[in-house]
Amino acid sequence: MTAVNRTDLEARDADDPLAPLRERFELPEGIIYLDGNSLGAMPVDAAMRVRDVVRKEWAADLIKSWNVHDWFNLPRRCGDKIATIVGASPGEVVAADSTSVNLFKLLAAALTLRPGRRIILSETDNFPTDLYIAQGLNRLLGGEHELRLIEDGANVIDAIAEAGDDLACAMITHVNYRTGWMHDMAATTAAAHDAGALMLWDLAHSAGAVPVDLNGANADLAVGCGYKYLNGGPGAPAFLYVANRLQDDIRPPLSGWMGHEAPFLFDTDYRPAEGITRNLCGTPSVIAMSALDAALDVFMDADMTALRAKSLALTDLFIDLMAQECGGPDGDWGFTCVTPAADRRGSQVSFAHADGYPIMQALIDRGVIGDFRAPDLLRFGFTPLYTRYTDVWDGVAALKDIMQTGAWDAAQFHEKAAVT
Amino acid sequence: MTAVNRTDLEARDADDPLAPLRERFELPEGIIYLDGNSLGAMPVDAAMRVRDVVRKEWAADLIKSWNVHDWFNLPRRCGDKIATIVGASPGEVVAADSTSVNLFKLLAAALTLRPGRRIILSETDNFPTDLYIAQGLNRLLGGEHELRLIEDGANVIDAIAEAGDDLACAMITHVNYRTGWMHDMAATTAAAHDAGALMLWDLAHSAGAVPVDLNGANADLAVGCGYKYLNGGPGAPAFLYVANRLQDDIRPPLSGWMGHEAPFLFDTDYRPAEGITRNLCGTPSVIAMSALDAALDVFMDADMTALRAKSLALTDLFIDLMAQECGGPDGDWGFTCVTPAADRRGSQVSFAHADGYPIMQALIDRGVIGDFRAPDLLRFGFTPLYTRYTDVWDGVAALKDIMQTGAWDAAQFHEKAAVT
Repeated sequence: MTAVNRTDLEARDADDPLAPLRERFELPEGIIYLDGNSLGAMPVDAAMRVRDVVRKEWAADLIKSWNVHDWFNLPRRCGDKIATIVGASPGEVVAADSTSVNLFKLLAAALTLRPGRRIILSETDNFPTDLYIAQGLNRLLGGEHELRLIEDGANVIDAIAEAGDDLACAMITHVNYRTGWMHDMAATTAAAHDAGALMLWDLAHSAGAVPVDLNGANADLAVGCGYKYLNGGPGAPAFLYVANRLQDDIRPPLSGWMGHEAPFLFDTDYRPAEGITRNLCGTPSVIAMSALDAALDVFMDADMTALRAKSLALTDLFIDLMAQECGGPDGDWGFTCVTPAADRRGSQVSFAHADGYPIMQALIDRGVIGDFRAPDLLRFGFTPLYTRYTDVWDGVAALKDIMQTGAWDAAQFHEKAAVT
Repeated sequence: MTAVNRTDLEARDADDPLAPLRERFELPEGIIYLDGNSLGAMPVDAAMRVRDVVRKEWAADLIKSWNVHDWFNLPRRCGDKIATIVGASPGEVVAADSTSVNLFKLLAAALTLRPGRRIILSETDNFPTDLYIAQGLNRLLGGEHELRLIEDGANVIDAIAEAGDDLACAMITHVNYRTGWMHDMAATTAAAHDAGALMLWDLAHSAGAVPVDLNGANADLAVGCGYKYLNGGPGAPAFLYVANRLQDDIRPPLSGWMGHEAPFLFDTDYRPAEGITRNLCGTPSVIAMSALDAALDVFMDADMTALRAKSLALTDLFIDLMAQECGGPDGDWGFTCVTPAADRRGSQVSFAHADGYPIMQALIDRGVIGDFRAPDLLRFGFTPLYTRYTDVWDGVAALKDIMQTGAWDAAQFHEKAAVT
């Protein structure tokens, strides 16, 4: 492999057809932000939209805004935009609540649709809230289900087959939050269907990060996060997907008035709305959802295939530069890449290092923002919408300098871990 | 009764010690806003705070904001402010999710704490989402509970006694959303306790509207809304209350990572956090919750007893002026007040009228914003923070003119009902 230098990367940035997308974001000076997998950067449109919603809609038009500015259909409008990003059809996705709450809704629905089947299958290394939600639901329902966890995500298809006709639902996160390992959505879904079970995907680390084709994979159910790669703002509303063919069968456990067939008749009896809307519960934050809605427009002007190509180019470059620059004079500064090759990789790269925590603190002190995941992972997200090739160089250069100077030994151990 | 005229009311406004609070809000010119019970007006501080959260926190400090700006404790900080408004202690209230989702959490917890008891007691005229949530939860749990609805809220204490030791939980909205009728919180709670049951209060139309004393009433559980009298913005985060003595017994059914004892250890097993925090679920919208947090500061500078006195003065005035101005030449223009006397009244007044819908449309067209609730109610909310005595006069004067000129006959029937 020919050594790469910064000049080469300046040329790549200059030639990058996606480079203009960076201008859609407001990014702080002097920061190399490699944590869009935890909190996406702010789209300029989102800030402007929030200002307008507060000043022109809330303050000026007050209650009339529900009609005048069609706040009612905001969850559906956001949902239809997200549908284009995750390979779903209009009316199959709606923005609502948090990822955790949406997991509860759809897992409860799945168990109801597969009565008598006992097993919920997931991974030990799934994002914890997914497991916690399954545990809480199981306890609420009397503890008759088994949350079966597989140690190695690569074995999920075998584990599904083994669970067989006792499997109610396989609940898997498409891209692993720690390693960036990506499941084969179509094959895994097919295995669940072969077992007669339902498949529930968590797209927290894949929506907006990698091409997702829910319809192409014949997916049943999915949830995802609005504040990571979709850049909807801190704690942005999440989303959920229900395949058209299943929508009429869903009896929402969180049957709130926004999911009622006719909320403003104020009936005493719950009747689920048609289609995806029944999965709404209470009144959504209009300010928060408007920020997400505006943030999604960046994707409406981008092509997921082109974004994927750049994402892989950035992550490949990072892995290569780590080998080139941060192997150390003896070839071993202790970094081990735990992220797989391109065909199984999300849009992040993680390196294990015994001193991962202080090293990450030293990096953050220099303005290179990644994050640390216990016990030993340095995690770096690469958002092709706003990350430059030279950012990758500069981030690795900062890490090299830290390792050469031993700056990380002195790093303070004060920071709480950041939110994924 | 001596007739009131507008000059008298100008003098009352001039003498009103609470009048300066109006300056804390941005209110549109030429509008008389009597719908703060549906969507509170915008506090100036909330708009400034949203701008700062978006530009200075999200955009500039990005993921570091969770620590630097203490986003982590925002739900608790909001909760502690709300606690002072509803008569709770610090650590008994937390801001989270929507009212509907919080009802699900606490009703599920209540049923778990009262195993073997079959009855959930509520009112036919409770706000529908409360009933829908109970119906969805009951269905999820196998349908073994009975949602028993009483027709007349005044009978709730008798109905609790009748349900006796089969009563698991009485779930009652403190102030009725249609009529403004207010329950006796202490007596009702005592009746539920006498039956060995838990009491779950919905404070949607009372938090910030009337003095609430949860601790004084020995209340168990409560939920409430952030976007009505608390002025937190459209769809603002809601809140929930759990009495200190019950907190350790709550096993949250929506057991998400934000309610975990140590979210950033990323354990596979759910362990509930200490205290009220365990009732959090997923990541909250920081933008939406910051708006609520800033809006609550208006109450930190106000006195709930003084606000109640003005609220009653405003609602009394409205009832009196309706009799004085809108009785019609023959004493009957068809308006019937359905809101009770001061001791049982929230901060709203509703009049039944056979042509309530077109009349309200005509009022709204003239910039007097109340709302209509089927089948025949004109509903007017009086927020003492920003409503003037002359607003009451001007609202009634507009209504009188509409009735005299028959302008409402021509009103268009095009608007969807507004959100409560």
